[in-house]
Amino acid sequence: MNTTERLPNWLKKRAMLSPHRPAVEFEGKVLTFRDLDLQAEQMAAKLATQNLKRGDSCAVLIRNHKDSVIIIHALFYLGVKIVMLNTRLTAAELIWQLCDSEAKLLLSEQTFFEKINEIQSSMQELPIIEKEALASISGVEGVPILEEFDLSDTATIMYTSGTTGNPKGVIQTFGNHWWSAIGSVLNLGLTEQDSWYCAVPIFHISGLSIFMRNVIYGMKVVLVEKFNEAEANQMIIENGVTIISVVTAMLNRMLTNLGGKRYPDSFRCMLLGGGPAPKHMLLECKEKGIPVYQTYGMTETSSQIVTLSPEDSLQKIGSAGKALFPSQLRIEKDGMEAEPNQPGEIVVKGPNVTEGYLNRKEATGETIKNGWLYTGDIGYVDEEGFLFVMDRRSDLIISGGENVYPAEIEAVVGSHPSVFEVGVTGLSDEAWGQIAVAFVVGKPGHVLTEQEIIEHCLTRLASYKVPKRIIFYEELPRNASNKLLRRELRKRLED
Amino acid sequence: MNTTERLPNWLKKRAMLSPHRPAVEFEGKVLTFRDLDLQAEQMAAKLATQNLKRGDSCAVLIRNHKDSVIIIHALFYLGVKIVMLNTRLTAAELIWQLCDSEAKLLLSEQTFFEKINEIQSSMQELPIIEKEALASISGVEGVPILEEFDLSDTATIMYTSGTTGNPKGVIQTFGNHWWSAIGSVLNLGLTEQDSWYCAVPIFHISGLSIFMRNVIYGMKVVLVEKFNEAEANQMIIENGVTIISVVTAMLNRMLTNLGGKRYPDSFRCMLLGGGPAPKHMLLECKEKGIPVYQTYGMTETSSQIVTLSPEDSLQKIGSAGKALFPSQLRIEKDGMEAEPNQPGEIVVKGPNVTEGYLNRKEATGETIKNGWLYTGDIGYVDEEGFLFVMDRRSDLIISGGENVYPAEIEAVVGSHPSVFEVGVTGLSDEAWGQIAVAFVVGKPGHVLTEQEIIEHCLTRLASYKVPKRIIFYEELPRNASNKLLRRELRKRLED
Repeated sequence: MNTTERLPNWLKKRAMLSPHRPAVEFEGKVLTFRDLDLQAEQMAAKLATQNLKRGDSCAVLIRNHKDSVIIIHALFYLGVKIVMLNTRLTAAELIWQLCDSEAKLLLSEQTFFEKINEIQSSMQELPIIEKEALASISGVEGVPILEEFDLSDTATIMYTSGTTGNPKGVIQTFGNHWWSAIGSVLNLGLTEQDSWYCAVPIFHISGLSIFMRNVIYGMKVVLVEKFNEAEANQMIIENGVTIISVVTAMLNRMLTNLGGKRYPDSFRCMLLGGGPAPKHMLLECKEKGIPVYQTYGMTETSSQIVTLSPEDSLQKIGSAGKALFPSQLRIEKDGMEAEPNQPGEIVVKGPNVTEGYLNRKEATGETIKNGWLYTGDIGYVDEEGFLFVMDRRSDLIISGGENVYPAEIEAVVGSHPSVFEVGVTGLSDEAWGQIAVAFVVGKPGHVLTEQEIIEHCLTRLASYKVPKRIIFYEELPRNASNKLLRRELRKRLED
Repeated sequence: MNTTERLPNWLKKRAMLSPHRPAVEFEGKVLTFRDLDLQAEQMAAKLATQNLKRGDSCAVLIRNHKDSVIIIHALFYLGVKIVMLNTRLTAAELIWQLCDSEAKLLLSEQTFFEKINEIQSSMQELPIIEKEALASISGVEGVPILEEFDLSDTATIMYTSGTTGNPKGVIQTFGNHWWSAIGSVLNLGLTEQDSWYCAVPIFHISGLSIFMRNVIYGMKVVLVEKFNEAEANQMIIENGVTIISVVTAMLNRMLTNLGGKRYPDSFRCMLLGGGPAPKHMLLECKEKGIPVYQTYGMTETSSQIVTLSPEDSLQKIGSAGKALFPSQLRIEKDGMEAEPNQPGEIVVKGPNVTEGYLNRKEATGETIKNGWLYTGDIGYVDEEGFLFVMDRRSDLIISGGENVYPAEIEAVVGSHPSVFEVGVTGLSDEAWGQIAVAFVVGKPGHVLTEQEIIEHCLTRLASYKVPKRIIFYEELPRNASNKLLRRELRKRLED
């Protein structure tokens, strides 16, 4: 079975198969697969000067940019694992992940100089290099490039927060990425005209997975640094984009910008992930003939694991679809498989599912049992096997496609000297899908303002995690065992 | 890594994902994937009455027919390995394979009653059942159906003859079939409109692999019992067939029948395998805008391993293309990798390559070294990495897509009491690609006719192996060590 676990180096193979095909378009310039390979090789030669050994981990703090794609492949070429850092995190949050992952190097860029300086002052031993500094470095000649990828080797590590405690590093192997790409192609198909628009962050699995498909499929990707709805619509209408990955907030803005216009028939897939979508939006898409494929996935499943299929995209509105070909899905209630239409925990399995969390044997064991991943999310499948996601994992807030965990915000708000107790919950929001709202009880005799709490958060939390509203309360709802009832908070909010 | 080696049962999964899609069209009737699953389940229940246990081998001697597709899936459902028998073989040849594979059952159909009777009289212990007899059998209720396929499990066994000795059973795992299907989809793409025409035998990997893609891709297959060029052209021109697998002889007949007509744009792939193609035919296809994708593969690679890509199909005429994404190719000369344009042995590697021959440790070790399969075929790759196949494995004759080994024919002709010695070689033929020609030296004093030799062969060899011409000689060309010089024979023939 050794042979089935090794594949030729993906970009190298793709550059050999389809050297002249467009690979990545960024800021109007197109790199072919041969260009991408050559530049990745040059970058690998430069990175080889940084004391990186095969099997080491290198953290990257980089924007959506063609250079970032090149850096990712260059690190794969060297056999170095990549810790994908969320650029929106604060220095404190980044430091935590850098320590936990034992990264041997932080590779970043000048635009993040403030965070870099903060990190460096806390982690003086950590080598840090900016990509701009690499430009003037001569590469090591004859650097050995990985000829084959072992599918069981770790490719990337991405941190996700949990309901409690610190973020956990999700191990994503080459196999996880491969099977994810294959599951998707068997659902969506593949044509020579395909061009996938990437305006989601490449440090998230939603963005990174597009670049795995890029080389595995030999498919063009149009990359932008920041999402802009007018530009996205224009790329679809005038520039031949056939597939785009979006979250609710992006789709919402694209629809408003689109107005009465329609997308051309060549546009074949609006892949909608990252949390719940309001039904009225999906109906509007149906009216406009927009092929929305709702999908359900997470960092632990290396992107999609459940997705609507072409024939169902306009029929089963509100459903996330069925488990992709290599994957399986079931709903568990009280340890048993639930009946159709009966809600329970969403449990998934497949070769795209992570083997676990970095250095977290216990958390891994709690989440993955017999190969099945317990997502903590609640949903049901109907008689035909379509998944309907009802509620993301206990109290998870998904704001603009980013996962926000109440517990993490509560810890920060609660650390303010004048806060007695705090509870955080999500509120539905037209623009962001959901926003975080904090219910705060002040300490007796202390004067506390909304502004003060938000400022306290801003230095400690990525801005997308900072509560958008603070509501002052005299007491938080708790159950008999004094457990905070977040659902009760949400109910009060909705009332 | 356990999870990556198991996938949901393919047809079950496909029927769950796309129950209403057309799966198989045969004689004008269409089965959906749900139909196919239901009928495979019923068939499994009937076959369960035949004392087949999980892990057993069942040999099948069946024509291209929808029932055969159902039988194949039913056997997979039961976890039974399938020995795919070539229906053109004589009873004697079949008996050899039945014994070698230790098949627990022979499943066939009435049309082959003569062969079945002959087999039964030689193998009285072997249970044999005709599919017509299954119709009236009640199935076993609640037969356990394999929920998952282990990719390392044997799915099918197909016999190939070698240059010497008896045919060898090539072990094809579920993983081999899976990776073959994936390699192909990453090259050819996949659309909702796809419809693959199967007029090649399903007992060959060329046909069987279409039915693996059928369920893995959720793609319609149009199956016919026998190839007919007029019907094939009509299916492409009027009935939406988008892809067809052909060998040279089929393409030749299709071109003649097509005359001045052209195929519609929806027809996107003429997949041409099974041996050398004359350049003038490929040029004619180019003139007519026919997208010919030459391909190179064999039973041991579970169909294609090297195939032209869409952008090269009209550019690199005469080349078989590059190794598919999961696979690798190199040319070896004197134990070293050959330079571009230097001929040598074609050596391939990939997860679609067999792990070896059934019960033939030695033959396996000679053919597969360090995961690389030594094909025995001769070819070169050009500077861009395109493979040009020059000569199939030593002395192999490919006639109408069937492999014919001179050694096998020589053994039979040589067993005629009046034959002193014999040498067999291939001759290029417009209709069949190649035909077998026998050079015979009679025993002194014996009178021998062409007719007598052919009749002697017809009872012992499948008709496609019987030499089409017999040439009487006084002496065969041999080298110093008395080895027959088949190339010299061919040269004489061409002169």
